Amino acid sequence: MSDVSTTWEHPRASLYTDHYELTMVQAALESGAAHRRSVFEVFGRRLPDGRRYGVVAGTGRLLEGLKNFRFGPDELDFLRGTGVVNEKTLAFLASYRFSGNIWGYAEGELYFPNSPILVIESTFAEACILETYVLSVLNHDSAIASAASRMALAARGRPCIEMGSRRTHEESAVAAARASVIAGFASTSNLEAGLRYGLKTFGSAAHSFTLLHDTEREAFQAQLSSLGPGTSLLVDTYDVEKAVRTAVELAGDKLGAVRLDSGDLVAQAQWVRQLLDSLGAVNTRIVVTSDLDEYAIAALQSAPVDSYGVGTSLVTGSGAPTAGMVYKLVSRSDDEGGFVSVAKAAKNKASVGGRKYALRRLDENGTATEELIGIGHRPADDGNDRELLVPLVQDGTVLPGWTGPAAVLRARERHAASMAEMPPSVNRLQRGEPVIPTVYEQAPLTQDTPMTQEAS
Amino acid sequence: MSDVSTTWEHPRASLYTDHYELTMVQAALESGAAHRRSVFEVFGRRLPDGRRYGVVAGTGRLLEGLKNFRFGPDELDFLRGTGVVNEKTLAFLASYRFSGNIWGYAEGELYFPNSPILVIESTFAEACILETYVLSVLNHDSAIASAASRMALAARGRPCIEMGSRRTHEESAVAAARASVIAGFASTSNLEAGLRYGLKTFGSAAHSFTLLHDTEREAFQAQLSSLGPGTSLLVDTYDVEKAVRTAVELAGDKLGAVRLDSGDLVAQAQWVRQLLDSLGAVNTRIVVTSDLDEYAIAALQSAPVDSYGVGTSLVTGSGAPTAGMVYKLVSRSDDEGGFVSVAKAAKNKASVGGRKYALRRLDENGTATEELIGIGHRPADDGNDRELLVPLVQDGTVLPGWTGPAAVLRARERHAASMAEMPPSVNRLQRGEPVIPTVYEQAPLTQDTPMTQEAS
Repeated sequence: MSDVSTTWEHPRASLYTDHYELTMVQAALESGAAHRRSVFEVFGRRLPDGRRYGVVAGTGRLLEGLKNFRFGPDELDFLRGTGVVNEKTLAFLASYRFSGNIWGYAEGELYFPNSPILVIESTFAEACILETYVLSVLNHDSAIASAASRMALAARGRPCIEMGSRRTHEESAVAAARASVIAGFASTSNLEAGLRYGLKTFGSAAHSFTLLHDTEREAFQAQLSSLGPGTSLLVDTYDVEKAVRTAVELAGDKLGAVRLDSGDLVAQAQWVRQLLDSLGAVNTRIVVTSDLDEYAIAALQSAPVDSYGVGTSLVTGSGAPTAGMVYKLVSRSDDEGGFVSVAKAAKNKASVGGRKYALRRLDENGTATEELIGIGHRPADDGNDRELLVPLVQDGTVLPGWTGPAAVLRARERHAASMAEMPPSVNRLQRGEPVIPTVYEQAPLTQDTPMTQEAS
Repeated sequence: MSDVSTTWEHPRASLYTDHYELTMVQAALESGAAHRRSVFEVFGRRLPDGRRYGVVAGTGRLLEGLKNFRFGPDELDFLRGTGVVNEKTLAFLASYRFSGNIWGYAEGELYFPNSPILVIESTFAEACILETYVLSVLNHDSAIASAASRMALAARGRPCIEMGSRRTHEESAVAAARASVIAGFASTSNLEAGLRYGLKTFGSAAHSFTLLHDTEREAFQAQLSSLGPGTSLLVDTYDVEKAVRTAVELAGDKLGAVRLDSGDLVAQAQWVRQLLDSLGAVNTRIVVTSDLDEYAIAALQSAPVDSYGVGTSLVTGSGAPTAGMVYKLVSRSDDEGGFVSVAKAAKNKASVGGRKYALRRLDENGTATEELIGIGHRPADDGNDRELLVPLVQDGTVLPGWTGPAAVLRARERHAASMAEMPPSVNRLQRGEPVIPTVYEQAPLTQDTPMTQEAS
């Protein structure tokens, strides 16, 4: 990753919001309850079907956006002109600035069913209007990171390159590149992600470049003379064998890589490797890029492939395009100022009320055994446990180190360390139960105490 | 839809681009082929599994972005600093301005396998670097519109409300709202989409609003007094029957709607309707919003439901989160200036070379029978046929009427008209073959003639 400092400015984030968040603020201002201290929690009721773990991503983007979560003249004019809320609410929004506290799982951390991924403490009105935006960012980025992590795992150290920009919304593509690198990918094809987050970008040529020229030989010659012999030549436009021979003839044993984008990749990689070796191009790498997912990558493990380019499956979350996290009010103050745990009672979507605290329980070898959740208080640490909720925002100020390119590096390290802590079953791609169980500590309290900086 | 004029400015779009697009430009500038006239085509090899039609969406967004597809100092500094391309290429990019022509299926139009959805004619270099961005926009927005169209169809005239913002990237959410309305949705919860495209927005309150108050009655009272009796009360936080009785007691027969967000919606809608009627609230509507997709909507057809709020399934394309369109060089000039059809030969991803022309063949009743594609020339019109490729960009200028809020209305009308042309099998939700077959007219030419304005 380069340390290019980004010139990118986050767009205004305040209208990435559902209409009902603002009408709730209006009605709560009316009833006076808008100012009740409230604790909202982000969690997923379950992992995507058969997945063994999820990866938290998007936290850095979320905090970057939080700094620009303001209602300026354009937003206020729109809300006034369309009558979404009344003048009293517009006045509240005009001076809106999140002044509360946010704790969360560090970006890159693993999560499990009911892990309290983010805890937001503020007034109801201040925290309520962040709901849609918070969920958009975390649900998207975590879905991508969760898929990317399994792919990187399946690749067992061979570099994976994120190449899915064209298969998802142009801004999702930037976030997907970022999330992939956090979860272990080596680089991305997406230039905007390179600019914003200092990610390493990668690419050389597509079939159209070969088709543009009168012969494949002319195309290869043009690419080699412009990009140097270290480039990657795409060899499957016409006949792979002929292309590989031409490539080595033109570039010699300095040829960086050949790319295969179609056909039976396992068999093809085998004979292309033999052909390259027989031609003396023993250091020329083989890149494969045809509709790969974690299972295809695993199947290629025995083939002489040097790196994987992954597109569609990655940016669509490999079957789970959204992480399914929700944002729920779990505790709020009453007229006496005490905190009361709250939860919806409806049958198929029940939640556990009360403010949560979370530890990753580790055994004496440092291997994770449980996701331990305390309700209303921090669970007792048995000595090896790791605190999962870290402070991100304090009295409205985003704490240093959680945003920008540095946060991506930090999240990548967190992810690698958390993966290393997991028991061996984390490596299983097949469907199954979560790697570790989520355990609630006994004796949930109904009367919460506010989370203190110390407790986190 | 309101006619609020948007104050939103499209961000720079030039780096929503894969690294290899720019290295291809560099190598083609080196070989001289960069300036060859080229025709690229966007098409999908197939529809998502079992789907009978797709809906083109994103065209307006794409054209808005094309106006801002420029390389400014920030982008050039980044590309120079990271060494993505050389100085000669940077000079080309600094003065980049698309000067070619684009024809496409009108936004909202239906498409089928191999429909030539967009045709881009320019120099290779000018058209090549649009690839990633063009595909990102069309693949995302068309995936959402294709899912939304089936949901609107299943709703048979009952209004559908797009509510999926929280389940997808915050910018995808805006595009998804736009695509849904094009495909027949009545409104959206997304405020940013309201601001940018003049879409009608909708929403009232979530469970957190009820939980914030000491009793459900207090919450309902606050909402009614602030938002008026026409609001929609969420009645499933605790006990539905009790909530409905409280709601009508407080709001009387002027209560706008009750919302059900959990449980067996068919059975529940039945008895809630009876209860509302028995309490005299005969005009109070029932809105349902719990994990709906096109099949759940169809199953609710017999239930007394007035509108559907659709979230996750919509913004993830109901199982097909990307449309799978590709952008291929199909024809380019040679050194003599004539056009040559080109296509990749690789086995599992073969394309049909040559510039395409497309007509929707209609029978004497105006019902569609074929997607008729001519290669290298326009197919003969049998008198009832409808031209599918319309001019969008001429000599680099985006033609009026295809961008902004007006384009959304126009696309919505196009979609409705195209749906009305289809045979009855378009109404089948179950998996099957495309509603009409894609037919290539006989006698493909290998030597293309440039598309003229007249021919389109």
